[in-house]
Amino acid sequence: MTEQSPLSLAQNVPANPVVAIVGATGAVGVELLNCLEGRNFPVAKLKLLASARSAGKEMTFRGQAVVIEELTEASFDGVDIALFSAGSGISKKFAPAAVKAGAVVVDNSSAFRMDAHVPLIVPEVNADAMAAHQGVIANPNCVAAIATVALAPLHAAHAIKRLNMATYQAASGAGAAAMEELRLATQAALNGETYEHKVLPHPYAFNFFSHNADMDEASGYNGEETKVVAETRRIMGVPELPVGITCIRVPILRAHGMAISVEFEDVVSPEEARALLEAAPGVRVVDDRARNYFPMPVDASGQEDVLVGRIRTDLGDPSGRTLAIFVVGDQLLKGAAQNAVQIAEALLPR
Amino acid sequence: MTEQSPLSLAQNVPANPVVAIVGATGAVGVELLNCLEGRNFPVAKLKLLASARSAGKEMTFRGQAVVIEELTEASFDGVDIALFSAGSGISKKFAPAAVKAGAVVVDNSSAFRMDAHVPLIVPEVNADAMAAHQGVIANPNCVAAIATVALAPLHAAHAIKRLNMATYQAASGAGAAAMEELRLATQAALNGETYEHKVLPHPYAFNFFSHNADMDEASGYNGEETKVVAETRRIMGVPELPVGITCIRVPILRAHGMAISVEFEDVVSPEEARALLEAAPGVRVVDDRARNYFPMPVDASGQEDVLVGRIRTDLGDPSGRTLAIFVVGDQLLKGAAQNAVQIAEALLPR
Repeated sequence: MTEQSPLSLAQNVPANPVVAIVGATGAVGVELLNCLEGRNFPVAKLKLLASARSAGKEMTFRGQAVVIEELTEASFDGVDIALFSAGSGISKKFAPAAVKAGAVVVDNSSAFRMDAHVPLIVPEVNADAMAAHQGVIANPNCVAAIATVALAPLHAAHAIKRLNMATYQAASGAGAAAMEELRLATQAALNGETYEHKVLPHPYAFNFFSHNADMDEASGYNGEETKVVAETRRIMGVPELPVGITCIRVPILRAHGMAISVEFEDVVSPEEARALLEAAPGVRVVDDRARNYFPMPVDASGQEDVLVGRIRTDLGDPSGRTLAIFVVGDQLLKGAAQNAVQIAEALLPR
Repeated sequence: MTEQSPLSLAQNVPANPVVAIVGATGAVGVELLNCLEGRNFPVAKLKLLASARSAGKEMTFRGQAVVIEELTEASFDGVDIALFSAGSGISKKFAPAAVKAGAVVVDNSSAFRMDAHVPLIVPEVNADAMAAHQGVIANPNCVAAIATVALAPLHAAHAIKRLNMATYQAASGAGAAAMEELRLATQAALNGETYEHKVLPHPYAFNFFSHNADMDEASGYNGEETKVVAETRRIMGVPELPVGITCIRVPILRAHGMAISVEFEDVVSPEEARALLEAAPGVRVVDDRARNYFPMPVDASGQEDVLVGRIRTDLGDPSGRTLAIFVVGDQLLKGAAQNAVQIAEALLPR
């Protein structure tokens, strides 16, 4: 959005805005509807926008049928907030039209996340940065959003010096079709049948694989890892933070996990970290050593809070300056739709 | 075995030994039979030992039925090599009788792994240490065995200074019943039915959880993690090596994965590491950046080699002294039965 004139900047959002969802029929789109309804967002009117293929179909919002319209540049007339979740290409093509029509765009794609004129927001972490928006606010990568909810309250008390992450990522990050492929492939495997994978590049039944995002051959990092590194730095406001990362897709439907080693500038005790996390917004500490009970997808799925546990001194750093934690969050909620709706909530007049 | 007199030490093993398998009906026991047969181990006679419950049943070895006998202290008469895989309690109770009867015990349990008189062996890594055995040789924890096959060739060229590991562990580490529970729980989930888990402490269908080994409440580390740290140090011969670790059980049947950050004393390039690993015994490099193809359980299951890929400079360490790798190995083979049979092979006269 760098080419945009400051004069065309977005205006105030009314107390009861007209909201559009772009990509309403996708896995995240469905959750955007659920979140708007579940969080009692004061929607004056809801417009559902999708490809011509879905136009004319209906979805239900607050018990009422809403007809899906085909997305065009003219779709944003009268729209106050446009929640985009239809991929980078659609965002790049249609977000300028939405802004021009006077809407504030909350974009779930990666299209504008590293644009200096577009704030990248996790409301629990850097809501203040929203004020500088010029019509578009970016919703982060799912791993970055979930991880920073757990990391920011620690960083606020003790500066984080570096991170090392290994992820356990669900099918939902690749969309509804990938979730269905996981179910179909697993059923076939249980039946002793073969299944030709169509959505993901590798067999998914009882299998895990390096994240399917495009690989940068020179560095050996895939696009998911590059996003998590860049976005975590940006959201946390630590531009040079060293972040080691391995992103792995595991056969889970909709919750992402991450084992994170957090190196601080000084020694931090697990007890202090636990207290900081227990007081943090959007976090639920699940750290019951006596019962061996820690964050799991079955407990995180469908939940708004990010679950944090296994809070302990990292044995890999004898200085005691590193803690290890294990974090699980719903990829479709805090990792996508819920965070976007939280951003929209922060746009409402106080 | 510290109480044992040097005079009772194990003798030479004949070229065609009598081999006993203790725990023949378990997940690892079945693979011990397969490995002895598949690797053409020169078995003169095979004795299958198990609990009274299994006695009288038959298993097939080289096309011949072998009747399972009940394990007693008298079972080891005439046995040259006894492969134990029936848990620590059975090993502690019966290994002394086997040694007394003149057998060399290769023990797959954790009973003797940290006993200074018992070598802990991964043949590709520290076969030399076998010579000091006093009748018992320990087979390592599955993660430690698989990881050290990949780490040792790197360490031989450049001293490793510390490790950080996150694991993706299969059901098989908890036995055949856990593998069946994964299948049954997953089928129930696909049917929309509930399933009461009996073997593992948490739901397993489309779920992952912190490893179920007993947790040390003071440190926050579970027994699996403690074993991996201690055994990795012992096998590699680096007693104080700092090892950060998080062990997670994922819904996979029989192959373990591990994302490992390897910090060296000096800068090591991914190219050099790849060359070292390509030349290493027991390793297959699967590191195709162009095709985004890396180690996966579907490729490692049933395979003897440990798969190593995602070989790259770790972004978490700007000094360039840390590499990241992703390793997958068959938990029942290199993580258990195959390694035990390789130890037995190394006992044979040259």
